[in-house]
Amino acid sequence: MATVVMKFGGTSVANVERIRNVAQHVKREVDAGNKVAVVVSAMSGATNQLVAWVREASLLHDAREYDAVVASGEQVTAGLTAIVLQSMGIPARSWQGWQVPIHTSEAHGAARITGIDASEIKKRLASGEVAVVTGFQGIEPGRNRIATLGRGGSDTSAVAMAIALEADVCDIYTDVDGVYTTDPRIVPKAKRLPKVSYEEMLEMASLGSKVLQTRSVELAMVHRMRTRVLSSFVAPEAIEPVRGGKHWQDIGTIVCDEEEIVESQVVSGIAYAKDEAKVTILKVADKPGVAARIFGPLAEANINVDMIVQNVTPDGKHTDMTFTVQAAELPRALEVLKGAKADIGYFDVKASADVVKVSVIGIGMRSHAGVAARMFQAMADRGINIHAITTSEIKISVLIDAAYAELAVRTLHTLYGLDKE
Amino acid sequence: MATVVMKFGGTSVANVERIRNVAQHVKREVDAGNKVAVVVSAMSGATNQLVAWVREASLLHDAREYDAVVASGEQVTAGLTAIVLQSMGIPARSWQGWQVPIHTSEAHGAARITGIDASEIKKRLASGEVAVVTGFQGIEPGRNRIATLGRGGSDTSAVAMAIALEADVCDIYTDVDGVYTTDPRIVPKAKRLPKVSYEEMLEMASLGSKVLQTRSVELAMVHRMRTRVLSSFVAPEAIEPVRGGKHWQDIGTIVCDEEEIVESQVVSGIAYAKDEAKVTILKVADKPGVAARIFGPLAEANINVDMIVQNVTPDGKHTDMTFTVQAAELPRALEVLKGAKADIGYFDVKASADVVKVSVIGIGMRSHAGVAARMFQAMADRGINIHAITTSEIKISVLIDAAYAELAVRTLHTLYGLDKE
Repeated sequence: MATVVMKFGGTSVANVERIRNVAQHVKREVDAGNKVAVVVSAMSGATNQLVAWVREASLLHDAREYDAVVASGEQVTAGLTAIVLQSMGIPARSWQGWQVPIHTSEAHGAARITGIDASEIKKRLASGEVAVVTGFQGIEPGRNRIATLGRGGSDTSAVAMAIALEADVCDIYTDVDGVYTTDPRIVPKAKRLPKVSYEEMLEMASLGSKVLQTRSVELAMVHRMRTRVLSSFVAPEAIEPVRGGKHWQDIGTIVCDEEEIVESQVVSGIAYAKDEAKVTILKVADKPGVAARIFGPLAEANINVDMIVQNVTPDGKHTDMTFTVQAAELPRALEVLKGAKADIGYFDVKASADVVKVSVIGIGMRSHAGVAARMFQAMADRGINIHAITTSEIKISVLIDAAYAELAVRTLHTLYGLDKE
Repeated sequence: MATVVMKFGGTSVANVERIRNVAQHVKREVDAGNKVAVVVSAMSGATNQLVAWVREASLLHDAREYDAVVASGEQVTAGLTAIVLQSMGIPARSWQGWQVPIHTSEAHGAARITGIDASEIKKRLASGEVAVVTGFQGIEPGRNRIATLGRGGSDTSAVAMAIALEADVCDIYTDVDGVYTTDPRIVPKAKRLPKVSYEEMLEMASLGSKVLQTRSVELAMVHRMRTRVLSSFVAPEAIEPVRGGKHWQDIGTIVCDEEEIVESQVVSGIAYAKDEAKVTILKVADKPGVAARIFGPLAEANINVDMIVQNVTPDGKHTDMTFTVQAAELPRALEVLKGAKADIGYFDVKASADVVKVSVIGIGMRSHAGVAARMFQAMADRGINIHAITTSEIKISVLIDAAYAELAVRTLHTLYGLDKE
């Protein structure tokens, strides 16, 4: 007998018919004698409608009221899921964040889970009841207001609930059947990864893979919570019930410790992110403190800067500074730089959202030299110009023109042997 | 300075544009220095959608989960209303039933408010903040589950909140501009009643007038809470802000003590209810205990029986028993009677939903004899057959064929002088 947290995203609970399908997945685990907590998102589209109403009410809205409105979406699906489970003879009840309670920080709209008091739910699970918990929300320190975790927060709710319940696994049901070596829409030969390490998954999530929310992977990594990504669109009976220990059916992708991954590749995946924008500041005086004068105001405006490249111009007195920001934040970033022009002292600013960040990720890089060199050579062979580079122990990212995105991804997928059967 | 509770129904908060209009009404009261608590319903249509999902999930649903789902509608409008008020520079926050808290009984889906701890809201109102409270819901004795009051319960939420806040008035904003002598769609000469007593309003509410929920009038009557019905579709500036005391603009209808109504009519209104059904049980043995054998099983099945008429047949040994039930409950009632046939012992059962109950209501009846006699004569003059009669101190109801509904209402409206300017 195992304890399982099963999380279902918006497309998996899009309507009552889909919720019935979710209930079949839950029934499979219950029938196997497992203790089950279910975490649900809002019906797909519901949160967007709620957010649209809030924006229509006021663009400068109180984050606490935004949370009160937007949290209602998960309450609907949690209640409906409990009703469907009950109609199948499975004892169940819905739990809103404040009912559990799931404690969060005060940052309404982007709150962090600070703790879960799962004692009551543990008791209920032990008695055979299924707990259906609203994702994406909790209650803030004042104990009287709902706080939401920000978009995609339900993954984090599920992992946090799994940790609080000391679950054997946190199963994230979504509309894809696992984590792939790269986007199958670009590379049809992309393969599902049966296992991927927390560290690799974290890089993939932050580098553009939409499968898991970054924060949920961080949390799983810190607490070593085994997290599995699988599809709710697979027939419920095609999936084996969870058993304790490390015996797993080869379905979905298990995010786990790297020690568990016996035959690890040097490179396990190629990610790309299209929502980047490049900013180049031309002819900045090359003297101490200039970087602080550029990036200080951006940080104050809460604009995240990613890749940074500095080139000294031929005259030796000026420098060109190139960096990337989220495309959505480009207009604000340009506004900030314009305001700080006198203080920074530059000739001009150029910007382009027509760039893409392509990344190569793999735990194996730690012990294999030359991964980066081969990547740069392959780009050069294809005539792809690299605007900026960032690296970490287990990833290399390059910024290139958006037009070359698919070519670069396919080239790298082949280069590191990911096409092979 | 007065304390005012303002309640807005579904059509008054149907979309963000309508909510902006609501906020203008609230602003008028705030600008006048009043302390304001707002009670809101769900957007019109929202609750129906939620109920439809619950029914689709399971016809035999857990009432607690029904409540968890259905209560979300008011949470959305409360949050949006707070946001719009804030955008107009009015400090405001939303309060869900569990946040206030509004305590209720355990009867999920049809709970009664058992108490409101309004201490925190009182403090906030005193500091100039507007409280926007979700109607229709509270928290049940276990303190961990939402309970709803049943359809239309927001009126009751508003009156209960007004009592808890010791408000000067509970203003119920709706899509009609007051309580009328009868339905203006049937009698164009129907007139708005500037004042109506609690007792009369209670009869009107239970006899088919849809303006106020019966339970809310009961509550207002017991606590002598002055309740005003008025239209949110009137321009906000056309309504004077509430002042303490008994000085009132002639707008809407004030439900108040009969002592306040100086020139009271003998009859103040004509109500009708179309959702009645008539059941006649033919040839029941006329012996002691037969009524108990008929109405016992119906009561056990939670079917409300209203008018009862018993006729002894010419042979003197049998009786025909006629009574009315809610039309929606007719199939269940017939089922119950069929099951109890052997025990009751009858020849046949006839039923018809093609009937209407027409009622004459007026405090003045207490001191004026002959009101009933004139009513029966007028019906006879028009050739309208009366199937059943019930009376109370301040009302007379007759059951007639549905085809005569409009004729009867018009006739009675003229008969009792309600047509006059």
